[in-house]
Amino acid sequence: MTYRNTLWKEQEPVLRNFDEAKIIRSVSGALALRDEIEQIVDRIWENDFDGIWWIGIGGTWASAMQAEVYMRHRSALPVFVDNAADFITTGNRRFTSQSVMICSSVSGTTPEMIAAADKVHEAGGTVFAFVDTPDTPLAEKADHLISYPANEQLKFYMTCSYMMYKNGEFAEYEDYCRNMEEYLPEVLAGVEKEADAWAKEYAQETVRFLDGHPDMPHYFVASGNQYGAAYSLGMCYWEEQLWIRTRTISAQEFFHGMQEVITRDTPVTLFIGEDEQRPLAERVAAFLPKVCANYVIIDTKEFALPGIREEYRASISHLVMRAVCSRIEAYMELYLRHPMTIRRYYRQFPY
Amino acid sequence: MTYRNTLWKEQEPVLRNFDEAKIIRSVSGALALRDEIEQIVDRIWENDFDGIWWIGIGGTWASAMQAEVYMRHRSALPVFVDNAADFITTGNRRFTSQSVMICSSVSGTTPEMIAAADKVHEAGGTVFAFVDTPDTPLAEKADHLISYPANEQLKFYMTCSYMMYKNGEFAEYEDYCRNMEEYLPEVLAGVEKEADAWAKEYAQETVRFLDGHPDMPHYFVASGNQYGAAYSLGMCYWEEQLWIRTRTISAQEFFHGMQEVITRDTPVTLFIGEDEQRPLAERVAAFLPKVCANYVIIDTKEFALPGIREEYRASISHLVMRAVCSRIEAYMELYLRHPMTIRRYYRQFPY
Repeated sequence: MTYRNTLWKEQEPVLRNFDEAKIIRSVSGALALRDEIEQIVDRIWENDFDGIWWIGIGGTWASAMQAEVYMRHRSALPVFVDNAADFITTGNRRFTSQSVMICSSVSGTTPEMIAAADKVHEAGGTVFAFVDTPDTPLAEKADHLISYPANEQLKFYMTCSYMMYKNGEFAEYEDYCRNMEEYLPEVLAGVEKEADAWAKEYAQETVRFLDGHPDMPHYFVASGNQYGAAYSLGMCYWEEQLWIRTRTISAQEFFHGMQEVITRDTPVTLFIGEDEQRPLAERVAAFLPKVCANYVIIDTKEFALPGIREEYRASISHLVMRAVCSRIEAYMELYLRHPMTIRRYYRQFPY
Repeated sequence: MTYRNTLWKEQEPVLRNFDEAKIIRSVSGALALRDEIEQIVDRIWENDFDGIWWIGIGGTWASAMQAEVYMRHRSALPVFVDNAADFITTGNRRFTSQSVMICSSVSGTTPEMIAAADKVHEAGGTVFAFVDTPDTPLAEKADHLISYPANEQLKFYMTCSYMMYKNGEFAEYEDYCRNMEEYLPEVLAGVEKEADAWAKEYAQETVRFLDGHPDMPHYFVASGNQYGAAYSLGMCYWEEQLWIRTRTISAQEFFHGMQEVITRDTPVTLFIGEDEQRPLAERVAAFLPKVCANYVIIDTKEFALPGIREEYRASISHLVMRAVCSRIEAYMELYLRHPMTIRRYYRQFPY
């Protein structure tokens, strides 16, 4: 299939939809929430608690999974992740009046999240919500509220890190925060600049392949805190916003069945991060070249991240991947001629 | 694409690969493990415990998720589910010497499961394993071992039910067990007979559609204890054993992005069970006809299950679905001309 008037022969956009100053301002602003987050966590600590529940749905569930896996590795705190629709139907008898739900929402109107907050309150528990839009139903139900746009994954990790510090599991916390505050905003903007040309080519190749294989799903594989990143990219961006078929699988599960449908032309993107689950993704990286000629590996280790201490890289590798994915989306939208704001069904009719 | 010598015009096999007496014997034998299971749980109870961890990988992780959601709904016991590859990399600092891993394996040789058992022992914890094949590494590492073939999901649910009885959360347990022992074996064999003709047609239509859309993934949607069933059907049967592309999603997550790639010809199979998450699947059932003309709904409620008490149906709806899926697999294998024993990669070379 050939299209006339494609951009790729005529003009070569660079850094499409990129505003460096805006990114730096946005990330710096999120990092500046530290005091506010610490005060809220301090109050949760004073009241004692028997469980911290990261609860989300769709993209916010993906972020919740990232927060939980981060803490599960390092902390003995009773930390759980739950899907809001599970929580409001199956419930959880271990969620008590001493339990805390932590969640995030851009719109503040997601029905399952509002119902989950109500259920928490019925149990006498506490809701700590990051809601980008104040004066919305979820924001009004929050016992502790922080309203600051975007940066959901960072806000979650900041909360995790301080909780682990409070629990004596993060001695280097002060140094860590200073390191992030000093370097992270420029580093994340820098990753976008560094990945831009590569992402443009990736998007171009991906769209060309799709033209010949419109039904073929794109496979995303990831482990550790990259799993949420891959889950969210596959579902919230490619499926929802670009209408491309995807299949996301954890590197954990990859070799337990799914590997059998990978052949020479199957499009696979493997995310490799730097946390303790990296070896699971590396095993997939070693396998792919033997059976597939259409795979791409994005390894956060390849980015220099100037200024970030070596031992802190793992804790931000999901943010690095998000920066790379932002660049991919910018060009997928262009080459597909599919504005990411349009929806087929969502909010088009009631269901 | 047309194939010569297809069976479907020439002969009409019925109840392919079906041995009623064998199914009844197999399920009855599993139910007869009750004493053995109860004794093991009694011993776990005597030693006290701070957590029950259902740990699996691939298909056994799917069964572990089913066990956990069953208990999460009804029990205040500290019950968790973990993926074995997560457990051996990320670990879990809340798994202690008082914690118990419950798992299952057909082969007893899955590397991640063996490593997980070792990790449990390093922590001083206990391994309760159902291993079909005795004298295998996992069987040898089990502190409590039951070796009986097949029926993994039933063995798990029997264990769950008795634990909830012990915890004062299942008063009707004796009646429940008698009801299952009296009727379940014949009921499950009966479901296979009842579903057979339908499953044959489903497989035939599915394979015909695949002939014209070889890249198209088949979408499975499910909630509650059906999610494990759909996950396992998609990955362990269709991907691994039939080499068909699939994308399984929970009904919880369906409306948070994935719905946008469903159009008129997208093949979707929706599993509806009878537990507390049924409304989530029903919402998908109401949506599908508006945008899709190629969907199938399998609702366990449509099966009479003679003898099974109404209030116990939810606890076996995943077994009913498995019986239906067995019939589907029998004909998919036939119409695809793809013996389910062959593998492209698994155990063909080291990776």
